[in-house]
Amino acid sequence: MLERYGHGGDLESATEAYGLKGDRFLDFSANINPLGPPQQVLQQLEDSLASIIRYPDPGHRKLKYRLGQKLSVNENNICIGNGAAECMALILLGLHPQKVGIIEPCFSEYRQLSEQFNAEVYSVLGRKDRDWKATIEDIEELMQQVDLLFIGQPNNPNGVQYTLEELRRLADTAEHQDTYLVVDEAFIDFIPPQQQATLLSELVNYPRTLLVRSMTKFYAIPGLRLGYTLAHPDVIRSMKSKQVTWSVNGLALLAGEAALESGEEFERSTLELICSERAALTHGLTELGCSVSPGEANFLLVRLPDPWIAIEMQRKLGMRGILIRSCAMYPGLEQGHIRVAVKATQDNRRLLQELRHVLEHEVQE
Amino acid sequence: MLERYGHGGDLESATEAYGLKGDRFLDFSANINPLGPPQQVLQQLEDSLASIIRYPDPGHRKLKYRLGQKLSVNENNICIGNGAAECMALILLGLHPQKVGIIEPCFSEYRQLSEQFNAEVYSVLGRKDRDWKATIEDIEELMQQVDLLFIGQPNNPNGVQYTLEELRRLADTAEHQDTYLVVDEAFIDFIPPQQQATLLSELVNYPRTLLVRSMTKFYAIPGLRLGYTLAHPDVIRSMKSKQVTWSVNGLALLAGEAALESGEEFERSTLELICSERAALTHGLTELGCSVSPGEANFLLVRLPDPWIAIEMQRKLGMRGILIRSCAMYPGLEQGHIRVAVKATQDNRRLLQELRHVLEHEVQE
Repeated sequence: MLERYGHGGDLESATEAYGLKGDRFLDFSANINPLGPPQQVLQQLEDSLASIIRYPDPGHRKLKYRLGQKLSVNENNICIGNGAAECMALILLGLHPQKVGIIEPCFSEYRQLSEQFNAEVYSVLGRKDRDWKATIEDIEELMQQVDLLFIGQPNNPNGVQYTLEELRRLADTAEHQDTYLVVDEAFIDFIPPQQQATLLSELVNYPRTLLVRSMTKFYAIPGLRLGYTLAHPDVIRSMKSKQVTWSVNGLALLAGEAALESGEEFERSTLELICSERAALTHGLTELGCSVSPGEANFLLVRLPDPWIAIEMQRKLGMRGILIRSCAMYPGLEQGHIRVAVKATQDNRRLLQELRHVLEHEVQE
Repeated sequence: MLERYGHGGDLESATEAYGLKGDRFLDFSANINPLGPPQQVLQQLEDSLASIIRYPDPGHRKLKYRLGQKLSVNENNICIGNGAAECMALILLGLHPQKVGIIEPCFSEYRQLSEQFNAEVYSVLGRKDRDWKATIEDIEELMQQVDLLFIGQPNNPNGVQYTLEELRRLADTAEHQDTYLVVDEAFIDFIPPQQQATLLSELVNYPRTLLVRSMTKFYAIPGLRLGYTLAHPDVIRSMKSKQVTWSVNGLALLAGEAALESGEEFERSTLELICSERAALTHGLTELGCSVSPGEANFLLVRLPDPWIAIEMQRKLGMRGILIRSCAMYPGLEQGHIRVAVKATQDNRRLLQELRHVLEHEVQE
């Protein structure tokens, strides 16, 4: 199993398991923009390599300014983090909830970080007939028991969004019950703006709602680490009070600044590619006998045809240089569930070819 | 005052204060190797920029292996951190001392991080007649009151080392009193190996002693963030249990791996340069009427001639494009104390010239 550290994208473990060098794998286990970073970001990094001899700005001033401009958000509503994962850690350290709620299946860090920072975790299960979303009633019942709820929007690994009305109802509940609602929007940039269900423009009404976003996925810079949180200034202050000086490195700040200037062309190309390739991949996978959840993000939750189980398929494909994410360990999901990223046309075709080969010529051991 | 975030090297604040662009300043307020990064590190980063599209190895496996080889330390004695600052935070989160001891003057993060993570801070003062080192008796008395003691070796901002015998005595005391001794060796690489007083090779005798090291100062990569802790496997495990996945970015890991291969020539050149330039700078500063602490590191604690105070001199030099660190806010030090990095020959001469100009032609306001 590749998920020794609980995640996809672990090329070191893949090398240990299958012998190939890390960059020789076609990696469908990490959900990164197949276009790679915007040209402006790569150019900025090349031009700025010498800047590593200087400390990063501990106040993240330039990036916060540009982010504020782009999102029409006040700078004291923003906390820049060393990846979305640090943002979540700062939320837990700053707000120190005793009890945290999660909706399974979901990003494994919600539980892991909560437990790391000594919170008790309560959960409800998503419903198969709602594509693994939970009912609002179930979530509201959960919110009565906890101090803070994590919800993925779109949720990882199924890629599905809650509606804006559902989110408003949860945000209202958070206000009335003195619970925090943490909406993880790490993948929301992959959804066209008009289809995004986000409380971004209504945050002022919901001082107990936090939005966590990632810049590493859409701008393809996971190696650099960059994320941010949007929330009420009191929440931001609590988070900052737990942040280690210089936790966000200097090249990440520069890359973030350049990414925000990369313009609409990059965004449009990405959205077009993901939309058409997700459809093609869904079609191809379905033809191979898989069932595919109707995700809106840059990844798909897939159930392999019986009798195939995820870890066996992961091993077979890994030997052929293709990495997929096993989802068998997600509560609520089944042994046959995998997650695959939506990549560029040729790569997706190769995945389908290799999958077809394994399904037709190999046997489940 | 430039230390808005409690540290030197804040070029954003300098730009706000004095109008020059950040890279136009000659920065004596941050203590970075004046040779810059080893050529191998820059080459590695240039060659590896494309790797930012992949997640960093959450296990830091390659860097830990190379560090273990270089230091003759077992890999389970090593925790890699997002800078030495994250290492200190993980120590506090992992060992959660209620009471922390510090010896002032010292690196401001000992107190700040301790308070950030809810420990009460107790302190003793260094003695002027010991170049701001505290007596061992004072430190041992402090250790009776606390669960964990931070000690700088060499200490920042005075640059002075405790002797190996003194350290052994403190490490013994830590064992007998169930206190942790955290030796901050962030600047020890700037001291020739035969003059370093370190418990590195004796750590096995002292399971309650931790060594924290930085790779950003000697290898001149503060923008990338990289540090590590050497300690007993149980301590390392406690630290890792609080570390956020991927907190160390991919380029920092690659730079660290390359730095460890950069060889003895880089180390020797650095030590020679620092040694001769520190002597020249001490001589020049003394001639200008300053008193200079006999530091062994790549920076000097300096007391300006009366009636000059640090923040006024900082402002005057800042207007002339030179940044120095005010040390007036360090408990135990005086209004006239500054800290300057030891830089390359031409830069140090320029500092002396500008300082002479201010002292001879300007008046303290």
